[in-house]
Amino acid sequence: MTANEAARDRTAERRSDDETLMRAALRLAANGPARGVNPRVGCVIVDAAGRVLAEGWHRGAGTAHAEVDALSKLQPGQARGATAIVTLEPCNHTGRTGPCSEALIAAGVGRVVYAVSDPGQHSGGGARRLREAGIDVSGGVLAEEVEAFLADWLEVARLGRPHVTVKWASSLDGRTAAADGSSRWITGPEARADVHRRRAASDAIAVGTGTLLADDPALTARDENGGLLPEQPVPVVLGERAVPATARVHEHPLDAIVFAHHDLAAALHELKERGIRRLFVEGGPTLASAFVAAGLVDDYLIYLAPALLGGDRLAIGDIGVATIGEGRRLHIDRLERLGDDLLIVATPLGRAEGN
Amino acid sequence: MTANEAARDRTAERRSDDETLMRAALRLAANGPARGVNPRVGCVIVDAAGRVLAEGWHRGAGTAHAEVDALSKLQPGQARGATAIVTLEPCNHTGRTGPCSEALIAAGVGRVVYAVSDPGQHSGGGARRLREAGIDVSGGVLAEEVEAFLADWLEVARLGRPHVTVKWASSLDGRTAAADGSSRWITGPEARADVHRRRAASDAIAVGTGTLLADDPALTARDENGGLLPEQPVPVVLGERAVPATARVHEHPLDAIVFAHHDLAAALHELKERGIRRLFVEGGPTLASAFVAAGLVDDYLIYLAPALLGGDRLAIGDIGVATIGEGRRLHIDRLERLGDDLLIVATPLGRAEGN
Repeated sequence: MTANEAARDRTAERRSDDETLMRAALRLAANGPARGVNPRVGCVIVDAAGRVLAEGWHRGAGTAHAEVDALSKLQPGQARGATAIVTLEPCNHTGRTGPCSEALIAAGVGRVVYAVSDPGQHSGGGARRLREAGIDVSGGVLAEEVEAFLADWLEVARLGRPHVTVKWASSLDGRTAAADGSSRWITGPEARADVHRRRAASDAIAVGTGTLLADDPALTARDENGGLLPEQPVPVVLGERAVPATARVHEHPLDAIVFAHHDLAAALHELKERGIRRLFVEGGPTLASAFVAAGLVDDYLIYLAPALLGGDRLAIGDIGVATIGEGRRLHIDRLERLGDDLLIVATPLGRAEGN
Repeated sequence: MTANEAARDRTAERRSDDETLMRAALRLAANGPARGVNPRVGCVIVDAAGRVLAEGWHRGAGTAHAEVDALSKLQPGQARGATAIVTLEPCNHTGRTGPCSEALIAAGVGRVVYAVSDPGQHSGGGARRLREAGIDVSGGVLAEEVEAFLADWLEVARLGRPHVTVKWASSLDGRTAAADGSSRWITGPEARADVHRRRAASDAIAVGTGTLLADDPALTARDENGGLLPEQPVPVVLGERAVPATARVHEHPLDAIVFAHHDLAAALHELKERGIRRLFVEGGPTLASAFVAAGLVDDYLIYLAPALLGGDRLAIGDIGVATIGEGRRLHIDRLERLGDDLLIVATPLGRAEGN
């Protein structure tokens, strides 16, 4: 074995050790809360021989970050020369807690291994800070797994707002209701169950005050018997009209967030600050059309019932398209038959040009 | 072999001979014109030994029916005791030609074999008339093949009007054009080619005067280079407004049929009398909605482009649905992806209740 071969072997071995420890850090991360402003992060601190000295994870906004949680379990000086393996690049930012980069430097850590860079405008730059302090830093270890684990948080970080899904159910001619407003049930039980599952998988569900006043929706995620599913989206109401004291939204297990305006960008910013990562926009046409017109839709769920209704109860109203070339082009990602109905899952084309 | 077994053998042999001769009659039928008021019918006359004495087929309205065409090739008395094998029950009706039943009786034919009963109100009853005259009559021989061959003519006979296909192309939100009326091209080349192939397979293509005046459509079936396909649908225009002398429909290879009214039932009756079996209703929304409202649609072709347009250019307008229970329910027979677009082929549910 030449010296070069021996060095290559040591590098490969170290990479394999890093990945094993990163997998342990990822398991720790999963102890944290799945929803919220902050990502779920895990950290393992090992000595030069690879023995685990401490483990930590983040328990949600306002609590210690994973690295600090792990360090807190060590005696003073115990981390000197140790390696910290952490799923997300250590933050470089003083929020409700101090920057993790400084905590690692102060503890005398010799090496830091992380999986995914922190995309945050304020929190990023930790790796650079650590390197400037003379610490050996490796990024990208097990990046794919950790990115998948953090996907919705990373998307919010990238977009600067929650992921927005706009959903509607219409007849094949684009109507959500008959002339008298009746719409129960335009789609069948399979499509409705699919909607409720997707509501449960969302952090929040938004309606306009028009729909709230007209339909008095419960905005809960329910099973086929009407029972509440274990996870519920936060109800969100947008619009200038008052929410009646008797509205069913007040019976929702979670408190409603009410925006007495229709400034979508401001509302999305506030929802992001409240830890909402995935927003499900259910209607009505005014709110859905406003999201489409503003280019604030990340994906569409269009349930089509095999029916024709005619009339003026349209799923989508004016979206600011004057001529055919301005039409919002979508890409159909998936097409499903749900009972008698169709589900079209689509994403906007040409996002670069503002949706 | 017992006497019973021998009789069974003879019956089986005769059935096999009948089917062979019916297949020959069907081949003769195919010599006739594929479109028109009358069905394509073929006839073979054989002697007692099964030798072919004469063949005949129908060449279109106003010419001899298949049976009479075959009989005309025989000497007086030559058909006495012979068997006539004919694809459709001999007619019992005096139209532009005399009833075939009487011609067969007069010729002294001993046996008549046919495939499919004549569903016509006026022309049916030939088998009964022949039996009353003492002739041995067998129906239903090779019925499935002959019914498939006559499918569109039989459907017209059953409906009492042409088969009506309503087609539109819209965005996912049900719009056929942007606010300024621009619609080229809402769907892609694959969907457009599909429409042109289906136009070519139709006997006629209908538009309202609104669409004629707004879009000045050619109403031809074209290939991807704009060249005319070999078969063209007859252009049909419905509505009270006048067709301008400069309209492109006048350049169509076939003369337009213009109804200066919107009495759909009367127009369909007239089209049936002119031999139109399959009518393709292309628009606009007023005409399409009128067909839907009247329950006069046999199938729908809905091309959906992955786009959103908003605005008031809807594929379907008022169809007389006041409440959700009155919605026109369809069955989705087929779902196809054509390039980026979707094609939904659907038929009305609950036809018995008037569509």
